[in-house]
Amino acid sequence: MNKSFDQSPCAKELSQVFAHIDSNKDLFVDRLLEYLRHPSISVENIGMEVVAELLVRMLSDLGFEAQMIQTPGCPVVMARWERVPGAPTVLLYGHYDVQPPDPLEAWVSPPFEPRIRDGRVYARGAGDNKGQHFAQILALESHLAVHGRLPCNVLFLLEGEEEVGSPNLAGFVRAHVDRLKSDLVVTADGPGHESGQPIITYGVRGIASFELRARAANRDVHSGNFGGVVPNPIWTLVHLLATMKNRDGEITIDGFYDDVVPPTDIERVAATSLRLEADHIKQEFGLIELDAPTDRPVADRLMFHPTFTINGFHGGYGGAGSKTVLPHEALVKCDARLVERQNPEDILAKMEAHVKKNAPGVEFVRTESTLPSKTPLDSPFSDVVQHAVYAAHGVEPLIYPTLPATLPDYVFTKLLGAPSFVIPYANYDEANHAPNENITIDCFLKGIRTGAALLDGLGRLAGS
Amino acid sequence: MNKSFDQSPCAKELSQVFAHIDSNKDLFVDRLLEYLRHPSISVENIGMEVVAELLVRMLSDLGFEAQMIQTPGCPVVMARWERVPGAPTVLLYGHYDVQPPDPLEAWVSPPFEPRIRDGRVYARGAGDNKGQHFAQILALESHLAVHGRLPCNVLFLLEGEEEVGSPNLAGFVRAHVDRLKSDLVVTADGPGHESGQPIITYGVRGIASFELRARAANRDVHSGNFGGVVPNPIWTLVHLLATMKNRDGEITIDGFYDDVVPPTDIERVAATSLRLEADHIKQEFGLIELDAPTDRPVADRLMFHPTFTINGFHGGYGGAGSKTVLPHEALVKCDARLVERQNPEDILAKMEAHVKKNAPGVEFVRTESTLPSKTPLDSPFSDVVQHAVYAAHGVEPLIYPTLPATLPDYVFTKLLGAPSFVIPYANYDEANHAPNENITIDCFLKGIRTGAALLDGLGRLAGS
Repeated sequence: MNKSFDQSPCAKELSQVFAHIDSNKDLFVDRLLEYLRHPSISVENIGMEVVAELLVRMLSDLGFEAQMIQTPGCPVVMARWERVPGAPTVLLYGHYDVQPPDPLEAWVSPPFEPRIRDGRVYARGAGDNKGQHFAQILALESHLAVHGRLPCNVLFLLEGEEEVGSPNLAGFVRAHVDRLKSDLVVTADGPGHESGQPIITYGVRGIASFELRARAANRDVHSGNFGGVVPNPIWTLVHLLATMKNRDGEITIDGFYDDVVPPTDIERVAATSLRLEADHIKQEFGLIELDAPTDRPVADRLMFHPTFTINGFHGGYGGAGSKTVLPHEALVKCDARLVERQNPEDILAKMEAHVKKNAPGVEFVRTESTLPSKTPLDSPFSDVVQHAVYAAHGVEPLIYPTLPATLPDYVFTKLLGAPSFVIPYANYDEANHAPNENITIDCFLKGIRTGAALLDGLGRLAGS
Repeated sequence: MNKSFDQSPCAKELSQVFAHIDSNKDLFVDRLLEYLRHPSISVENIGMEVVAELLVRMLSDLGFEAQMIQTPGCPVVMARWERVPGAPTVLLYGHYDVQPPDPLEAWVSPPFEPRIRDGRVYARGAGDNKGQHFAQILALESHLAVHGRLPCNVLFLLEGEEEVGSPNLAGFVRAHVDRLKSDLVVTADGPGHESGQPIITYGVRGIASFELRARAANRDVHSGNFGGVVPNPIWTLVHLLATMKNRDGEITIDGFYDDVVPPTDIERVAATSLRLEADHIKQEFGLIELDAPTDRPVADRLMFHPTFTINGFHGGYGGAGSKTVLPHEALVKCDARLVERQNPEDILAKMEAHVKKNAPGVEFVRTESTLPSKTPLDSPFSDVVQHAVYAAHGVEPLIYPTLPATLPDYVFTKLLGAPSFVIPYANYDEANHAPNENITIDCFLKGIRTGAALLDGLGRLAGS
C-alpha cells in the first residue's frame, strides 16, 4: 500500500447499500443457487445462449441497455448504464462459461444442482466465474435499490469463452473499441489469498508458446545397425535447446530480454511485502532447491522475470525395459512467460530465427501468444480500488504487481488503454476446474460489498 | 581378402560330399520342412523342450554324444564328435528358438506349416535360425554318409534363448569352459548380402545401455504459476545430455575413448573394399546428410567407432495442441555401441560418474551390457574359413571386420579365447522377425556345402 487507509466508517450512502446487502443476504444466496442451475459449458457448447439471454434479462431489468452479441464462437453479453455525466466509466469484465464438470463421480452433490454445506455454495461455476460476476450484478442492483441510481457509469462485458482461452475476446474488443471506451476495468475472477486477506492484482505475464519438430530418417532404424550413421532427431533437439537457455537459467536467445521493463520502486516494495518465501515453495513441492538462478527472490521470479519452460519432450521408445531404436522424429513443446513490455510475436520471431540459425532442419511451429499486461501501481484509480476493497473487507488488500500466469488483460490495458484491476472474490480453495467447486457465502457477500464500494468510490471521485 | 583363392577344383573328398548333397537336395529340403513344423518360441515358452529333444536325437543318430542341458531359462543342446586326434575342434553355434509369428494374418501360408513357393521355403525359423543350423547338421551328416567319419572334431552348441537376448549364454559358457574348449567358433546366422555374395564377419560392436531419470517437484505444476521457480527435469536432462556428446558427434565423457583399438591396416582395407556408400544410405532413409561428423566414411562409422544413441526421451505433455505444464519427471533411454576393446561395465561407470558430477540429482540406471568382440582378420583359421566359403559358393566372400550391431560373440572370443567367424547362410530378404520368413533353397544348399567345405578345410589343416 502506498498510503494508509482512512479508518473512518464509510460514507452514509455506502453504509445504506451495505445494510441492504446484509438484510437481503439469504435472498441473494438463493438467487445465486438459481443462476448456477443453468449449465453453460463452452467447450461442449452446452447452454451458452440460454445463460447469455438470462444475463441480458437480468441486466435489462436493472435498467441497463443490454444485448447479446454473436462472435465466431460463443456470444458476448454487453450492457451499459451511462447516466452520470462527468463521473468515470468502469468496465466490469467476467465470463459466464464454466469448465466441464468431469469427473462427475467425484462431486458430493451434482454440479448443476447447487447445494449449501458448511457455509459454502457448491456447484460448477460457483467460484469460476458465475458467483463472482453475479456478485457484481447484485452490487449494481443494491445501489439501484437503495439510491435509485448508480454513482458512476458502468459497462458490463461478460464473455462465454474464457474457459477455452478467450479466442475471440481480442477480436471483439478491437471491433468494439469505441463502445467499450472506459476509464478503468475491474475483473472479479480467480481465487483469493490463502489467508483470506483480499487481493488486488495489477498485471499478468504474457505467453509465447511453440513446438520444435525434428525429423531425420524416413523411419525408425536399429541403433546397432545405423548408430553413428543416421542422425538422431533427439540429439538435434537436445543440442538446439542447450543453445536456448543455459544451466544458470539465462535465456540465450539474441534480444530475448531487450524489451523487459524492470519493476518500479513501488512494485518492488509491494512484491517484497507479499513475503513469498522460497522455503514455503520448497516444502509445498518437495524441492531441495528452486530453479536456477537459485539466489533470485521468489517474487522477482514470478513477477518480473520471463521464463522458458519445456512443457514436453517426446521421441523414441518410452516403454518398459530397453529398445535399441534410433528414432526418426521427436517433438518438443515449450512456453515462454513474458513480462512487460515483451511482445510475444517479437519473441517468437527471435526464437524462430535462433532455431533457423542453429538447427535449420528443425520445424518451428507457433501455437499461442498473449501479450503481458501491467497497470502502474500509482495509476489514478489505484487508491479508489484499494479503498473499496478495504471498505468491503475491513482488511487491507495484498497488492500483486503481476500475477505469474497469463490472462488476456492486455485487451483492456493495451487495446482499450485503460488501467485494469483484478479483484478475486472467491475463496482460495474454490476448487475451480475441479470437482466440488464452491464459493463461501462470506466471500460471495464480501464480493457484493466490494462491488458496491467500488461504485461508490468512483462516484465520489467525480464529486471531489 | 588377404590372398587370392586357389581357383582349382576342390579336392576329391569334398567333391564327393558336394555330389552327395546335390543328389539328396530334395530329401534335405523335405526334412527341413519337417523340422520347421515344430514351433519353438522362447518368449512364449512354446515347444522348447520338444525341439531340443528332437535335436538331441538328430545329433545322437549321427554318432554325436548329445545332451540337453537345463539353464535358468530354456535348455541348451550340446553335442560332441571328437575322434580325430591332432585335428582342430570347431564349435558350431546356432539357436533353435524362433520369434513369435505375429501378425499371423500377414502370412501367406501359416508360419508352422512350411511351404515351398518360387524356390523358397516359407516358415517361421526358415532363416532365423533353424534353416541355418539344420544345414550345418546336414553338412555333418553328408560327410559321415560319404566318408564314414568327419575330417575334424566338432562341438555343437544350440541355445534356446537367442531371440530373447541370450540371457543365460554367458553363464552357460562360463560354467562349461572346459567342455566347450575349441580352436574356432563358426556361427551360421543372419541374412547375407543384398548382392547374394557370401559374407564372413569377424566381429560385432558391444552395447552399454542405461536410463537417466530426473525428478523435480512432487507433482506437475502450472508453467505460468511456477515457471521460473520450480525446476524443470526436462531442462536438467537437456543440459546434462549436452555435456555428454557435442554437436560434432564427439562423446565428451572423460575416458570414453581410452580403450578403443584403432583398426589394423588389413581391417581398413577390408572395410574400404566393401564400398559402403553414404549416398546409398542417404537415399534409403531419405536423408540430406549423415550424422556428425559428416566427413567420416560409412565403414568407419559402422565398424570402428563407438556410438551414443538416445533411444527415447519422454517427459511432460505430448498430446495435441499446447498444455501449460511444468512437468515433474522425465526419462531418457540410451545405448552406446562399443568397439574393441571398450568394456561396457567400465563405460557405464564413466557415464555414471559423469552424471553424478554434472547432474547429481539425476538417477542413472544400468539396463544392458554386452562386450564387443573381434577376431583378427589374420587369425590362423581365417584362410580356411574364407576358402571354405569360396569352395561352396564359387564366389569370393565379402569380409566384414565388424558388424555394427551387437551379438554375444564375446562369449567365444573372450570367454573361450577362440577366434569366431559368423557366416550367414540365409538370403538378404529372409524376413527374419517378420511375417513370411523364408530361406531360398539355393542359400540352404550353399549353406550345407559351406559347412561341408569348412570341415574338409579344417581336416586338411591337420594333415598339412
